[in-house]
This record gives sequence, C-alpha cells and structure tokens, in this order.
Amino acid sequence: MDVWSLEKCGFDAGEAVGDGNRFLCANGYMGLRGAPEEAGRDLYAAVTLAGVYDRNGQAWREPVNAPNALYLRLFFNGKALALGETRPIKHRQRLDYRCGLFSRDTLFDPVRVESERFVSMAEHSLLADRYRMQVIQDGEITLQAGISTDLWDINGPHFKGFDFRPGPALQVRAVTCEKGIEVAAAQCLRTDFETLERLEQRPEGLFRMLTCPVKKGQILTVEVFAAVCTSQEGKDPAETARQSCLRARERGFEECLKAHRDAWEDIWACSEVTLEGNGEAARDLHASQYHLNCIAPRHAQDLSIPARGLSGQTYKGAIFWDAEIFCLPMFVFTQPEIARSLLRYRIETLPGALKKAREYGYRGAFYAWESQEGGQEGCTDFNVVDVFTHRPVRTYFRDRQIHISADVVYALWQYSVWTGDRTLLEEGGARVILECARFYLSRANAHLDRTEVDYADVIGPDEYHERVCNNAFTNRMILYCIESALSLREVFGDKKAWFSSLLKEMDYERELPLLEELCGRLRGPKTREGVIEQFDGYFALEDCSLDAVRARLRDDREYWGGDHGVAGTTQIIKQADVLALMALLPEAFEDEEVEKNWQYYEPRTEHGSSLSACMYALTACRLGLLDEAWRLFRRTAGIDVTGGGKQWAGEIYIGGTHPASNGGAWMIAALGFAGLRMSNGRPEIHPRLPDQLTRLTFPVIAGGKKWTVDITRDGGSILPS
Amino acid sequence: MDVWSLEKCGFDAGEAVGDGNRFLCANGYMGLRGAPEEAGRDLYAAVTLAGVYDRNGQAWREPVNAPNALYLRLFFNGKALALGETRPIKHRQRLDYRCGLFSRDTLFDPVRVESERFVSMAEHSLLADRYRMQVIQDGEITLQAGISTDLWDINGPHFKGFDFRPGPALQVRAVTCEKGIEVAAAQCLRTDFETLERLEQRPEGLFRMLTCPVKKGQILTVEVFAAVCTSQEGKDPAETARQSCLRARERGFEECLKAHRDAWEDIWACSEVTLEGNGEAARDLHASQYHLNCIAPRHAQDLSIPARGLSGQTYKGAIFWDAEIFCLPMFVFTQPEIARSLLRYRIETLPGALKKAREYGYRGAFYAWESQEGGQEGCTDFNVVDVFTHRPVRTYFRDRQIHISADVVYALWQYSVWTGDRTLLEEGGARVILECARFYLSRANAHLDRTEVDYADVIGPDEYHERVCNNAFTNRMILYCIESALSLREVFGDKKAWFSSLLKEMDYERELPLLEELCGRLRGPKTREGVIEQFDGYFALEDCSLDAVRARLRDDREYWGGDHGVAGTTQIIKQADVLALMALLPEAFEDEEVEKNWQYYEPRTEHGSSLSACMYALTACRLGLLDEAWRLFRRTAGIDVTGGGKQWAGEIYIGGTHPASNGGAWMIAALGFAGLRMSNGRPEIHPRLPDQLTRLTFPVIAGGKKWTVDITRDGGSILPS
Repeated sequence: MDVWSLEKCGFDAGEAVGDGNRFLCANGYMGLRGAPEEAGRDLYAAVTLAGVYDRNGQAWREPVNAPNALYLRLFFNGKALALGETRPIKHRQRLDYRCGLFSRDTLFDPVRVESERFVSMAEHSLLADRYRMQVIQDGEITLQAGISTDLWDINGPHFKGFDFRPGPALQVRAVTCEKGIEVAAAQCLRTDFETLERLEQRPEGLFRMLTCPVKKGQILTVEVFAAVCTSQEGKDPAETARQSCLRARERGFEECLKAHRDAWEDIWACSEVTLEGNGEAARDLHASQYHLNCIAPRHAQDLSIPARGLSGQTYKGAIFWDAEIFCLPMFVFTQPEIARSLLRYRIETLPGALKKAREYGYRGAFYAWESQEGGQEGCTDFNVVDVFTHRPVRTYFRDRQIHISADVVYALWQYSVWTGDRTLLEEGGARVILECARFYLSRANAHLDRTEVDYADVIGPDEYHERVCNNAFTNRMILYCIESALSLREVFGDKKAWFSSLLKEMDYERELPLLEELCGRLRGPKTREGVIEQFDGYFALEDCSLDAVRARLRDDREYWGGDHGVAGTTQIIKQADVLALMALLPEAFEDEEVEKNWQYYEPRTEHGSSLSACMYALTACRLGLLDEAWRLFRRTAGIDVTGGGKQWAGEIYIGGTHPASNGGAWMIAALGFAGLRMSNGRPEIHPRLPDQLTRLTFPVIAGGKKWTVDITRDGGSILPS
Repeated sequence: MDVWSLEKCGFDAGEAVGDGNRFLCANGYMGLRGAPEEAGRDLYAAVTLAGVYDRNGQAWREPVNAPNALYLRLFFNGKALALGETRPIKHRQRLDYRCGLFSRDTLFDPVRVESERFVSMAEHSLLADRYRMQVIQDGEITLQAGISTDLWDINGPHFKGFDFRPGPALQVRAVTCEKGIEVAAAQCLRTDFETLERLEQRPEGLFRMLTCPVKKGQILTVEVFAAVCTSQEGKDPAETARQSCLRARERGFEECLKAHRDAWEDIWACSEVTLEGNGEAARDLHASQYHLNCIAPRHAQDLSIPARGLSGQTYKGAIFWDAEIFCLPMFVFTQPEIARSLLRYRIETLPGALKKAREYGYRGAFYAWESQEGGQEGCTDFNVVDVFTHRPVRTYFRDRQIHISADVVYALWQYSVWTGDRTLLEEGGARVILECARFYLSRANAHLDRTEVDYADVIGPDEYHERVCNNAFTNRMILYCIESALSLREVFGDKKAWFSSLLKEMDYERELPLLEELCGRLRGPKTREGVIEQFDGYFALEDCSLDAVRARLRDDREYWGGDHGVAGTTQIIKQADVLALMALLPEAFEDEEVEKNWQYYEPRTEHGSSLSACMYALTACRLGLLDEAWRLFRRTAGIDVTGGGKQWAGEIYIGGTHPASNGGAWMIAALGFAGLRMSNGRPEIHPRLPDQLTRLTFPVIAGGKKWTVDITRDGGSILPS
C-alpha cells in the first residue's frame, strides 16, 4: 500500500464537511480545505487564516477565512460540470502527504478534469493549481476562474464588503468587521489555449469567464496562481498578493511545485518517523505528521496551533492546552524553532492572561482556555447549546479550567529541559512562570482551622465533571508550577542579574515564602487501594459502564457533561485525567501505582476527546500493555484518516483535524514505543515495540544535537546523526 | 362574608389534588386531606402522619400515610354514589377555620349526603365523622364503612402488608418497610338505623357492608369514630387505637366535637388576629392561622413543621428553614411552648447535623436542608427531574445551602430575645449555636495572600443561582451565627458553670479566638449605588425582565434554576434573598439602603417560592410602601385559600399547604402592619396600617406576659391583657 497518501473514490456531498478536513492543504499561514475547486459554502470550501480573528456582533469570535482565490468552475455548452450539482461518472481525489499535494480526477460527461494543487510550503502567501480538461465531445467550454467570496463562515460574515479590482491579476480586498484588518487575495492564470475572456463581478466574487470551442480528445490546461496577504504582515497586502501571484506565474507551476516539494522534504528530513510491519499504521502516522507539520507556524515567531488546526473555524480557531501538551513535543524534538514559536505565543500573550486573572479577582496569570490573538479569551460562558431546548448552556471551561496556566509552565520548563535552551526563560518565560505561580497563590483555598490548602471549584482535563474540588491532575500540575517558580531561583537566582531585576520589578520577593508555604500545604491526592481519586467525591459517584451511560442518551448530539449530562453524575470520564498526569510526570509515580490507575480508569474513559487515547497509550507502553498501546495508537494516528472523532457538542459543530492527536501519534511512537526520554541532558531510549511492528526509525534533535533512533525487534539504538 | 370559612360548590376530580390541601383537617399529629369520604388514591385521599418516615427501596424517604379509617362509600340499589364516579346533582364542601370542621352536602340521584368531620384537637389520635343520608326514592342503601388502605403514596408503598382484625372496632395494623414502625388504625360506628352487616376483607381494606331498605324521605345517620396510633408513641398501638375509638363512640359525636371546638377556641384565644375593613383579607388571614395552628406539634415536645405541613408527602415531609424563619414567629408570640418544640427539634437532631458535616469533611453542625427524623437529610443530590429528558438533575440544595445552620441559630437566639427565656439555650441550644459556628469556621475559605475570608460555592435563599460565591445573605447570617456564639460567652461565660463545662467538653476554647478572627475577616457585601450584590458576579448576569425569562420556557413545568434553567444565568431570582436578610436583620440596615435594594430586587423576583412575598412585604411596611405591602400580604395570606403557588419543580409535584406563607401572613400583620418588635425586653408597636384596613387587633405573649395589640387608623396601643 501507499503509505504516503489518502485516496477516496466517488463523491458524496454529505461527507463534504469531513472530507474538507481530511484532504486539507496548509502551510501554517493558511489552510485550504479539501473541497473541489468549484465548491462554495455549500460544500464547506474555506481558506482559513492563522492568527486573524474577527467577531461579528454577538456571535463567537473566530478566525477569518480569506476569499478563495483558487476558485474554478467549468461549463460545457453552457451547462455547469460541478461536484455537488453534476453527478460525475467517476471521481477520485487524493492527498499526497509527502508533499502536501491535493489532486483530483473527475470524469464528467463529457469532460475529464484532472488537477493538482498545493498551498506553498516555500512561500507562505502562495497557492497554486494545475487544472487539466480532456474533452470527450465537441462543443464549447467555459471556465469561470477567479476569487470567490462564497465562504463557509460559521459565525460570519467577517468582512464589511469586498473591493474588486480587475487586471492581469484579479484582486479582492476585504476589511474585517471588528478590527479593520485588511485581507487581500489575488489570482492570475496561465492557459495553454486561446480563449475569449470576459470579466464578471458578482456578489459572490470576481471572475474571468474564459470561453473556448473544443474538439473531442482535446486537452486544455490552466495553471492558477493565487496569493493571500493581510495587513497583519505588512502594508498594502493587495499589492503584495498581486505581485506574489504574478511572480509565481512567471516561474510556472512546475517550478513553484518543486520549491514546495523541496520545502516538504526538508521538513520530513528532520521529522519523519518510519514504521515497518504495518502499512496502514505507517500511513496513519504519516498522515498525523503531515497534518501537524502543515499547520505549524513557520512564517512567524510567536504563533501557536489552534485545536482544529487550519481546517476551519471550529473551536473559534483558538489555542488550547493541546498546543503545549500534545503538539509541542514533536516540535521540541524535531523542529525546536517551531516549539519556540508555540511558547513565544504564550509569552507574548501574558498580558491577556494577567487581564483574565484580574477579571476574576485574582493576581498573576490565568491563561485563556481558548486563546485567540493577544491572549484574548475566546471561550464563552455558554459554550454548549442544549439539544432539547436549543438554549445555550452555562459551562465552566472558561472560568474553572485553571490547569491551563500550569500546562503552559510545564511546557516552558520541559522545553528548557529537553533542549537545554534557557534563553526562552530569560526572554519572558521566567516571567510567565512566576505570574502563573502567583495566580495559583491567589487562587488557593486555605482554611482558618487547618493547614491544608485546596483548589476548589475547578475542572480537570475530564471536562464532563465541572466544578470539582481537588482535581488530582490540577493540584499536582499546580505543584509543578510552584516548584518551577522556586527552581528558577535555584537556577538563576544568584547568578543572573536579569533574574534579580525581574523579581524586583515584579515585586515578587514577598511571594516566594508564600509559594514555599503553599508547596508544603497543598492537598495531595486521596487514594483507594492505590487508585488516585480523580477529585474529592469521585468514588462516591455512580459507578456504571460506558455502555450504560451511552444508553441514557436521548439524542446522539447531546452533551455528556455537566449536571444535565449523562456522564456528569457518574464515574464515566471524557478523557485521561489521572492518567494524563501519570503520562506527563512519569517519574512521580511507581509502575504499580500507574498500573492500578490504568486498570481502573481506562474502562471508565469514553475517550470522547482526541486528547485521551494518547495519554493512555503512553502509560500502556510504560506498563508493557503493548496490545492496548497499539489499539490506542491506531485510534490516535488514524483520526484524520478516517475522519473520526466527535462531530458535535450539543448543537455546536466540533469537527476538523486533530492536531493534538497528530502530535499524540508522534508521542506514542517516539516517547512510547521507542521510550525516548532525556536523562542528564542526553536522550536515551527504552524500546517497547508492539508485536505488530518490525522496525521504527526517526530523527531527533536533543540538547542541540541530532540523533537517529532505530528500534527493531531485537532492541534499538540512538546514535548521533 | 363569612370570614371563618372556605366553601366550594361543584366537584371536579381534576382539582382534587389542590382541594385536598385547601380543605385539610389536621391536629399536628396527623393531617386528613380534604377529599370526600369515598375517595381513594385516585382522589388523593391520605392521612399523613407527623414525624413518621419510611423509605421504600431507592425511592425518596417520605412521611407515612396511615390507613384511612374514616372511609365510607355509599351504594343505592347496588350502584355506587361516589364523587369522581357519579355525577352529583349538586355538591358543596366547606371548611370551618374556626373549629377545623370539614363538611359536605352532596345531592346524588337519589340520595342527599351531608357530613361533618374533624381531626380532634382535643385528642390527637382521634378522627370523627357524622354522615347523614336523606333518601329521595324507595330502595336499598348499602354503606361500605371501614379502613381503607387505598392510599395516595408518592413513593410508597410504605407498609409490608396489612393485618386486618374484625371486632366491635375494626382494626388494621401495618408495619413500615424501613424501620418496622407499627401504624394502627381502628374504626367503629354508631348508626341510628338497623342494618344487615357483613364484613369484607379486601386488598384495599377492611370494611363493614351495612345494608338497609329505605323509604323516600327517610334520613339515616351514621357516626364514625376512628383512631390512629403508632408504635412511636407507645406499645400496642392497635389496642390503643381500638380503645380510643370505642371510648369516643361512648361519648358520641357531639361530645367529641365539643371538646374539639373548645380546644380550638383556646388556640384562637391566644392567637387570633382580627382584621377589619376587608372581609376577604380577614378570611385569608384566618385561613393562614388555621393552617399553621392545625399542623403545630401539640402532642410532642420536639417536633417541627414540614414545608407542606401535613397535607401530604410533598417535599418528603421534611423540615426546612421555613420552620425557623417563617413559622416560628407566630408561635413565639402566641404559643411559645410550640416554638420551643420547633427549636427542641433542632436541638434533638444535632447529632444528625454533626454527622452531615462530617460526611462533607467539615466539623461542627451542618443541618439537613430537608430534615427528617433524627436530623436525617431527606434532600437528595438529584432533587429535580428534567422535563425534557425525564432524567434526574444534579442539584446542590443539599450540599451548598449552608445558611440552614445559621437560620437555626438565628431562631434560637431570637426566641431567647423575644421570650426572655434562656433555659432553651442551657438545654442544648448553646451547644447547637457553638457547633454551627464551628461548622462555619471549618467551611470558611481563607487565602494565602490576603486576609479576606469568603464563603464560596454556596446557595442562598434564591435557589435559582446555584454554587455562588459570597452570597450576601449567607455571609451575613454566618456572621450572626458567629456573633451569637461569641455572645454566649458574654451572657453565660463567667456566671454559669454549665457553660464553662460545655466549652470544655466541646474542646471549644481554641475555637473562640478563631471565631473572633473570622468575624473580623469575613467578606462583607459588595454594593453598587447602594444596592447589595446578591453574590459575587450577580450584577454581571444578564439583566432582563421576568416576562422575558418566562417567555424562554419551552415547558410550563420546567425548573427555572441551575445552569440549564431559564433564570439561572440572569438576574431574575426565585425569592427574597438580599431582602430576606434585610427583613430578618432590620437594624443592620438603614432605611435608604433597604429602599434601594427593594426597588432593585423586587422587579427581578419571581416570587417563585412561598417564602418570598412575606419578606418583601415586611420591608415594604418598614418603607411605608403600604400598597405594595398590601398586595404582597394578599398574595401571602391567600395562598391556601386560592390553592396558588407552584405545583411543579421539573417533574416533581411540590403542591400542598404553605406553612411558611401562613406564618408569613401573621408576620406581615403583626410585625409589619402593627410594627411589633421587642425593645429592651418589652414589646412595642410601630403601626403602619394599609388604607384597605380600618382595624387590626391581636394578642401577644412577650417577655412572659400577655398583651393586646389594637391598631386603628388613628394609631394603636399595646396593653397588658
């Protein structure tokens, strides 16, 4: 089998929303959904921009979709030949993961359309398409080529209107409603046939209508060059886009494609994981790495990765803890400059986190649960819509999921341990850690008549149980955060002037003894026969099976969590919680303890989040439960191949690609199967290869050096490259 | 108009559940619902016992209904003449509030039935009925008279079966499922006509079938004497009941009725409030006083009053804060021995409150939100059923409505201030106060980096907003509790040996400085332009009208509160909360402040609880808003005349009588319109008579002396009687 591609035969408009995700092309700057060239909003076509957000009225803020400048629509003798409208005789579409190339082969009556397109990894603003028509019958072809404004917007429209400019390159300029950000798209063509050309300006876009008489057997090719720019990167984005696509046309499609391929080869050279022994698994892991690599910010120094990548506007295009906990490790070990960008995003958005803490009456940094630009909180108080009453439901993700700040600290600290690079701490990272610790200091619940300190009214990773007390994950991660803050003093305290100044400037000297006190007083986890209670009172909840809980649903789209949800009052959890803690801090727990907890919690976990299976798989590897690890690896790595994962939370669409699972697949392979870990600044391996595999190889950067890991059935090696 | 009775013409089975409440007869030991003699469970017949509870399987615990020993069913020529089955030509039923006499006059074709019955206020186990039949056509009458076990049980059955015994008095013995309490009923008859008698034992009871040929115009009378006893009062309750009803038969109906009437006259002599100027209002106030007096515990020293009195099993027959805050004042000022019983109930159930606190991880006394015998918590974690999914909803009344302990303390302290009687404090009251204060000490949320102490995650009186922080009512009542505990030391500290021993025994010396610290650090209310914020964040909630919120309902029976309820995320509140505080602690607030809060909160209050209007009315009196006070008084006093009040909370029936409103009506008249208050151990008045009234008179016991209050349009007086 081809371990480097995904192919689908036939076309079903009902699957268009999912296919748009699975066949995504992206380059970190923008994502082009895997819809055919002729698609509009009906088939969920979109070009989603990274880091550009807009809010329309009272609707949710979300990322902005650029006008679709790769739009093409074919007519034969005046009749449209378009997927979704015209039943094709045959249709096949394919995504090449190796080089991010989307291709199609559609046999309409009487034209066969073949195309290839990509979002350039060599030049972030560029998109290109080569569109070939083979005519089976004499007649006349019309090609509508231009820039479509018929966009799939969940909470749009996001533009105040469009400004159309004709010319050798068509241009569309638009300005966002909320902040007046200019978004421009340009398109130009190169055809190998003579046409009559007519310009059409319509509400849904600016188009050239190219008409040409054709003969049976004739083949016509058009190359489309498009560019998208915004005023966030520079002045006059429309002109920049115009020049960019005209330059690309000069070079031609092949040359642009070559530069794009080369860029992808560089990415694979430092990140490719090769699995042998199971073709499907190898393909799924390639898919995961493709999807994560294609949305990584490469054009900017301080962007991060949204929870659904660039596959659309789901989850408001916001950055969750997914970025730090699930996406970051692959980059730390393969492309640390991208890891830095993810972390710099948190450093840059510290003011937003300080503001959020203040709004809730706390000091320090409380990071946004759904972070948009500047750290603005995208999560609303009503993040689910009830399927029975169609009313928004008060949820507490925004205000109680306080582990987010500790997750950021964890990522910063782990980055510095893994890479040995402490500059990021000096460049704002230390300040973030100290402010997060300060937040937890002010959020702690102490008592008048006992020393213990609780964290009450929180939500842990398992979001089905809202507003719980002493979530074991949260408390332990808070301890990690406090310890990191105190460690900063050990590491930099006496030696670095910048650190002393920082403490002074932050008026932090008086916090340090309080942090030490908090460390000593923080409530540790309660256990029962070695099993950590996920939160106070968890064991007293109804202990029933996942099937029993599922059977209580009255509507497939029901939200499971909260006081009204079927899971909220039972021990069924959405995702790894205690086990996530054990996966993140493996050294804090003994094997026996991990095993007891694995056995208890795994059957009680719905894995209703794409963040779950990976954590269980990592601990399964540790425990030698390799069949379980394999099953969970397949589930994790396959999610954006099969299009799995939940599509709805109440009445809210939550589909898209799954960067956290994509990163999780790498983590299972590298940290789980190969057992990669850092020990005294050096990487080492602890191979645990499932029976289904014969070999596993991948490159690693650790401590500033390059290594190659090679695991076989007989053992493994990690050698300098 | 007759200000002493309620009358209804016609019969509508659809109104039977409400009429059963409105026409209730009771004597504090048991309540006989106002259903016709021939009614079974279909017409919601029940004889609800005070303080006898049972739980069947996993269903809710609730009070036990005794077998109905006043059961009578009439047949003419073999055909039943029964309301609900036979359409009467005329029907009229009446409740005489003065003497608790239920009467009916039903014209069937061809028999007119007239009866009078009562639950004896002179002898708590006794019930009697005089049933007169006037025959309009020759034929044969059969009377089925006996003890029916066809009971309206919400969560029953509560008996393991029935043991039937024939004899001059029929007897039915039953034993409760959970605790094996024996409940016995006996019935005997006296007829003025000769009959053929046949005994019938059926699943639904033990009956005599009395058959008699009749002539047109003939009048037959049967007197029914019944008794109910349980093993909670003494051994062999069946024999006690048998003797009790046989003795009553010897005395005859008239003599029994006279003793009953006399007992009621004694009650009215010390409690009757006379209103002049508005007949309906006078009648409603009599109704309120009747309903409260008839369920007052008079046969025991340590019983209290359930939230729906003895009108059925609603709210599990449990004692809420209604008893202390709303029912208690009338008794304190008219029948202090009953007030003592209510308070002794809390003293006796202290072990239950200590146990509940321990279960939640706290020290001290956390009283049950819905208190059953021994202080057992009747409130479940799932106290509402969702109307859309029919699933139980997790509610937080049980675990977060912590003001209950402070309410108990408030009542104990106010009792001792109003009556001057401090013996109750010595006899356990002081211990209760100290344990409640200890509970709040352990429930306080302190911080590591600031001195302020919060009470987080609570529910105030307004139950629509669950799990809020720093509810102003709760915090202030907690302060009252702490201050009361500290005052005990002032009052008894040096002088009373018992108090010193108590502190020692309770290991309380170390708590006192902590309590002083808590007093100083407790978070006071936040205000905005003089309006107290009900809880942290209340002002940030959606501020919309009551009508707007009501318009969002999708089902009339929907529960309004919690995260899914239409009110939970708005500023619409269920009942007085800040205003309840101002009504309970009037001296803690200035008039101007009270007025601002009244104006802000009243339009935002649904008055969805019978506890609401009274609190607003009391503060309206203070502010001279007498038209508002009058409107709210009518609403409060009329509730059990009109059968108003909510009938449903989700899918749970919550109808019944409203003792809190009944007590509230007295409070508005006496504390509001007359402005009765204690000042330096003496009662004084501050008359504020609404325009609708010309005179208001009532007796008062205060400081151990009797007084008469007389308010007219020209002023008022309070004079020793």
